[in-house]
Amino acid sequence: MEEQDRPAAKRQAPPRRAAFRAFVPLTTRWSDNDVYGHMNNVVHYQLFDTAVNSWLIAEGLLDLSQGETIGLVVETGCRYHREMAFPDRVTAGIRVGRLGTSSIRYEIGLFREDEECAAADGFFVHVAVDQTTRRPVAISGTMREKLQEIAG
Amino acid sequence: MEEQDRPAAKRQAPPRRAAFRAFVPLTTRWSDNDVYGHMNNVVHYQLFDTAVNSWLIAEGLLDLSQGETIGLVVETGCRYHREMAFPDRVTAGIRVGRLGTSSIRYEIGLFREDEECAAADGFFVHVAVDQTTRRPVAISGTMREKLQEIAG
Amino acid sequence: MEEQDRPAAKRQAPPRRAAFRAFVPLTTRWSDNDVYGHMNNVVHYQLFDTAVNSWLIAEGLLDLSQGETIGLVVETGCRYHREMAFPDRVTAGIRVGRLGTSSIRYEIGLFREDEECAAADGFFVHVAVDQTTRRPVAISGTMREKLQEIAG
Amino acid sequence: MEEQDRPAAKRQAPPRRAAFRAFVPLTTRWSDNDVYGHMNNVVHYQLFDTAVNSWLIAEGLLDLSQGETIGLVVETGCRYHREMAFPDRVTAGIRVGRLGTSSIRYEIGLFREDEECAAADGFFVHVAVDQTTRRPVAISGTMREKLQEIAG
Repeated sequence: MEEQDRPAAKRQAPPRRAAFRAFVPLTTRWSDNDVYGHMNNVVHYQLFDTAVNSWLIAEGLLDLSQGETIGLVVETGCRYHREMAFPDRVTAGIRVGRLGTSSIRYEIGLFREDEECAAADGFFVHVAVDQTTRRPVAISGTMREKLQEIAG
Repeated sequence: MEEQDRPAAKRQAPPRRAAFRAFVPLTTRWSDNDVYGHMNNVVHYQLFDTAVNSWLIAEGLLDLSQGETIGLVVETGCRYHREMAFPDRVTAGIRVGRLGTSSIRYEIGLFREDEECAAADGFFVHVAVDQTTRRPVAISGTMREKLQEIAG
Repeated sequence: MEEQDRPAAKRQAPPRRAAFRAFVPLTTRWSDNDVYGHMNNVVHYQLFDTAVNSWLIAEGLLDLSQGETIGLVVETGCRYHREMAFPDRVTAGIRVGRLGTSSIRYEIGLFREDEECAAADGFFVHVAVDQTTRRPVAISGTMREKLQEIAG
Repeated sequence: MEEQDRPAAKRQAPPRRAAFRAFVPLTTRWSDNDVYGHMNNVVHYQLFDTAVNSWLIAEGLLDLSQGETIGLVVETGCRYHREMAFPDRVTAGIRVGRLGTSSIRYEIGLFREDEECAAADGFFVHVAVDQTTRRPVAISGTMREKLQEIAG
């Protein structure tokens, strides 16, 4: 039997809450449910972006109005373990999986209601670039310190 | 220098149109652009779903009103090579990357305007499940034949 | 000076919290912000749907898996008084503005953070129809009573 | 029988293609369909924005990268006459309904496939404001001329 014949939940255990370092509560929306009555696979990425950027803003690391450096997304991925649906409450757990000179890999788990195991988990890789030239820039020392606080 | 310090475009060459077997023209939307003035990374997944389901419906392989079998998404991923933005026209190239007993890996390239190299490419893995029980079912012979026509 | 030359905020005062009868807390998303750095005008309607359907589900009036009657939207509208943006917290105030034999006009105010005046307010009209025939059906006595509790 | 007891299609005839002055072809997306299997009422507003901004960009009236004046949306509305759904092709018809010193009322009809009668029609009112101060500015002579070409 080939690997892709088995649902993701059997291939690798979904992460638990303890695997993440910061948590962001999120609300679902009516439009998150697709024709099959569950959260469409695309919505998980909206929640990833929202969770990480919420944390960055709360920590003073992302200034939407003034920032000269932006995080360009170069790769994303998600594994879906269990269905979620509006009106579920969702909590996003986040951690920094790898921290390079100018890149950051954020890893995110989405937890349905009070469940211990993630309904989905994924990642995205940000490359810090200059907003105008779009060329990579080194991540500053202050930001690096904050990011290391949620390294996992 | 670590791998994740380099933008995706340098890590691996983006695929060309010839790497795909069927093509679906798509239009972008005003709301696709985020605060950075480019297509938000989430939108690419909306286009993946749209391209593959358009092809399935056109081939008579997906009946939204009657189907007893649905494709549950268990894993998705995307690499971003170049920015796109509304009002770009986009063409999605699709192919079947792997075909298991009950699972299908679709691979998609998104081409901006008339460009030869994909601005982004990704995949999603569908597991065919019964709409009610959500248990995997074998992909039928008819569907299997059609899918093999776009195997790449 | 013609009416449409004046911003909406000057044409008619935005409603206050006291004008609504039930309240639903909502979180904003990164993707809600458009290229102008504020919540795109479309998102407000996602929040309207979410607020009203959340209330209906919480009151036991909407069963997504079993319901034979669905609310078909026949008209919607929104006035925008002040800009909102991710990561603002938003509270939706709702009330029933009119209740017909088979139709309901829901009115919604969206309040930014702890503000007293709505940043936007709008409505949508549901016609209760049979899910299969799409023909109007009378709103049941139980539902009518619940809806009258939030009439405003 | 009160007005709101009758579906919109009976209250007022939907506009026909001849009522509009410019046309923009649009593609629908998998995620446009909600749990009821039809285009969610919110999506129509995404199509309104897309159609009008596509026309503005094609006419050289909107420069996303450089413009100092932006169109702030102060009011929107939509009436739904017939259901649409992915994978329908949709054509948006647009016209300028009213043109003030600094405001524009755009009116839009959405036509399913080759149908003559609009499946939905609506409007939005833009107030031209300075991108920084958010204060109304007069619409320039060049733009005014172009807008009058699609006045209806």
